[in-house]
Amino acid sequence: MRIAPERLLAFAAAALKAAGASDEAAEAAAFAMMHGSLHGIESHGIRLLPWYCEQIRTKLVKGAPDVTIERKRRAAVLVDADGGFGHLASYRAMDEACAAARDCGIGMAGVINSAHFGAAGAYALAAADAGFIGFVTCNASAAVTPFNSAEPIHGTNPIAFAAPNAGGDPFLLDMATSSIPWNRVLRSRTEHMPLPPQAALDDEGRFTEDAEAARALAPLGGDMFGYKGAALAGVAEILAGALTGMRLSTEHVPGALGDTGVGHFLMAIDPELFIPADRFAGRMAGYMAGFAARSSPERPVYAAGGPQWIARNERQKTGIPILPGLMAELSAEASIAGVDFP
Amino acid sequence: MRIAPERLLAFAAAALKAAGASDEAAEAAAFAMMHGSLHGIESHGIRLLPWYCEQIRTKLVKGAPDVTIERKRRAAVLVDADGGFGHLASYRAMDEACAAARDCGIGMAGVINSAHFGAAGAYALAAADAGFIGFVTCNASAAVTPFNSAEPIHGTNPIAFAAPNAGGDPFLLDMATSSIPWNRVLRSRTEHMPLPPQAALDDEGRFTEDAEAARALAPLGGDMFGYKGAALAGVAEILAGALTGMRLSTEHVPGALGDTGVGHFLMAIDPELFIPADRFAGRMAGYMAGFAARSSPERPVYAAGGPQWIARNERQKTGIPILPGLMAELSAEASIAGVDFP
Repeated sequence: MRIAPERLLAFAAAALKAAGASDEAAEAAAFAMMHGSLHGIESHGIRLLPWYCEQIRTKLVKGAPDVTIERKRRAAVLVDADGGFGHLASYRAMDEACAAARDCGIGMAGVINSAHFGAAGAYALAAADAGFIGFVTCNASAAVTPFNSAEPIHGTNPIAFAAPNAGGDPFLLDMATSSIPWNRVLRSRTEHMPLPPQAALDDEGRFTEDAEAARALAPLGGDMFGYKGAALAGVAEILAGALTGMRLSTEHVPGALGDTGVGHFLMAIDPELFIPADRFAGRMAGYMAGFAARSSPERPVYAAGGPQWIARNERQKTGIPILPGLMAELSAEASIAGVDFP
Repeated sequence: MRIAPERLLAFAAAALKAAGASDEAAEAAAFAMMHGSLHGIESHGIRLLPWYCEQIRTKLVKGAPDVTIERKRRAAVLVDADGGFGHLASYRAMDEACAAARDCGIGMAGVINSAHFGAAGAYALAAADAGFIGFVTCNASAAVTPFNSAEPIHGTNPIAFAAPNAGGDPFLLDMATSSIPWNRVLRSRTEHMPLPPQAALDDEGRFTEDAEAARALAPLGGDMFGYKGAALAGVAEILAGALTGMRLSTEHVPGALGDTGVGHFLMAIDPELFIPADRFAGRMAGYMAGFAARSSPERPVYAAGGPQWIARNERQKTGIPILPGLMAELSAEASIAGVDFP
């Protein structure tokens, strides 16, 4: 079953409003979920809708937050999400970072008192769509061990980076700093499939490919180079958690009442800072062309974001695929909200 | 054989000056090499001295460059290395980025017309030592394939990040975005040792553990997650190469005459921007303590930089170990330069 993106977007916004979200918070959250659903990132797509609505209905997260912006220095603003979800605050934060980058060359925003913000790449892409280089990171509840340990210290702490490419689709990195996300473990349990090697650990802190035995995730890099993934997770921890004064991953309590002490970090750079726009465009085009030159139908090679643009192009034409289980959940949400399901 | 750090530093500076480097360029390069030698990063330590001296003697790289700084926007400067090595320009660039961060909250510097700058972590650490969060990246001659390809597109493109930690040693990440550097392949050939799995590729673009067969390096993440390492290499490519208008990795010609069109990217953030200094220090201390709490003598767990501080503490006491082969090279350099060897 496939649903046209614009119809799914409208449904998501309507359901969130029915649950108690303000227009602006609902639209930002719906837009961020569509980023996931449109680009084939199902984990951060429309499947989050019932979870978001439930948190608003139960007032775990504020549906109509009063998002405020305070300029702290010439190129830095602090955005207070007021205990709401991170989508609205993060889109605004990236707008502010881009404005500061236009003024000062580089700009940044910290977001405080926030909650889940979906895919970090949504905000990095917003920067690239506005003509800026964007960087976004966030930490999350501890599920990933440090290198050579059995006990989690980091969340899956995503890093996202995007750069505009005048001649085509932008460069877009959006990655967890663990090899796999926790929902990959859950899915492998349901499907009785093995996990990839060196991606998860058991009770004893040994690598396991048995999803039932998995208790923690391993940092990107596995048994020899996992210190690199763990260090990248630390970058997220320091920028999103320590710099903002918000929670460390070990302090996050997933789903707990009022657990909205989440921080995000967003940054933008003006790519026309050092060289004229056409020269930057030429450099980017040259870089991106290198991937096409190495690609063949048998062995496709993509720049970061390539698979996402393929998903987007296809889904814009044929709609967003929804599996039966999710379809039932979304129908149920439509009934609760009293809105039409597309 | 061990040599006291301060004696090795003085020797390196003297040899560089004898080869034709200006006082300031020689001292910056010597200091950057000591960063490597002191912290156990031998690949970027004193072993580079003969190579640096040779490039200055043959005028491949300018020994006495006129490094200039141009403010492009309020928080962004462009540093022209004037065809010299990157050390002096990069230390100055990080100074400027920190000054801009004090003023604007965040600051950045691009370096153009540069050459090899040693370990990226040296400049990130300089920021942390000055009380700032630092980020540094650079690209390098193409040796690393994109994900799912046989043909290199990126260099080992390092990423470095450091954050001050008032209660102890800073957080310091300094990593290649490939699993291993090329000199690991060379060393494995000499020692007839296998390479780690999924770190290098043969002529056909298949993973190989045979150092003799290795023709290219693989991005961090191996056969399943190498798209993450490749995307991180792209961040370096875009910030150090495209943003500055300098060379892409595929355009670098290692060792070629006048190949100094290298760009670097440096950034600093004031950690007292959003919260008071003592609160940031508390957040950092809490984060760093998490590693100590997970560590045991049998299974040590470190925050990023931990192994480097162990090496530094030991080498400050006992000196920097120099293997016989390198000792012979350094003695030869001392003879050419006409300076005393410690």
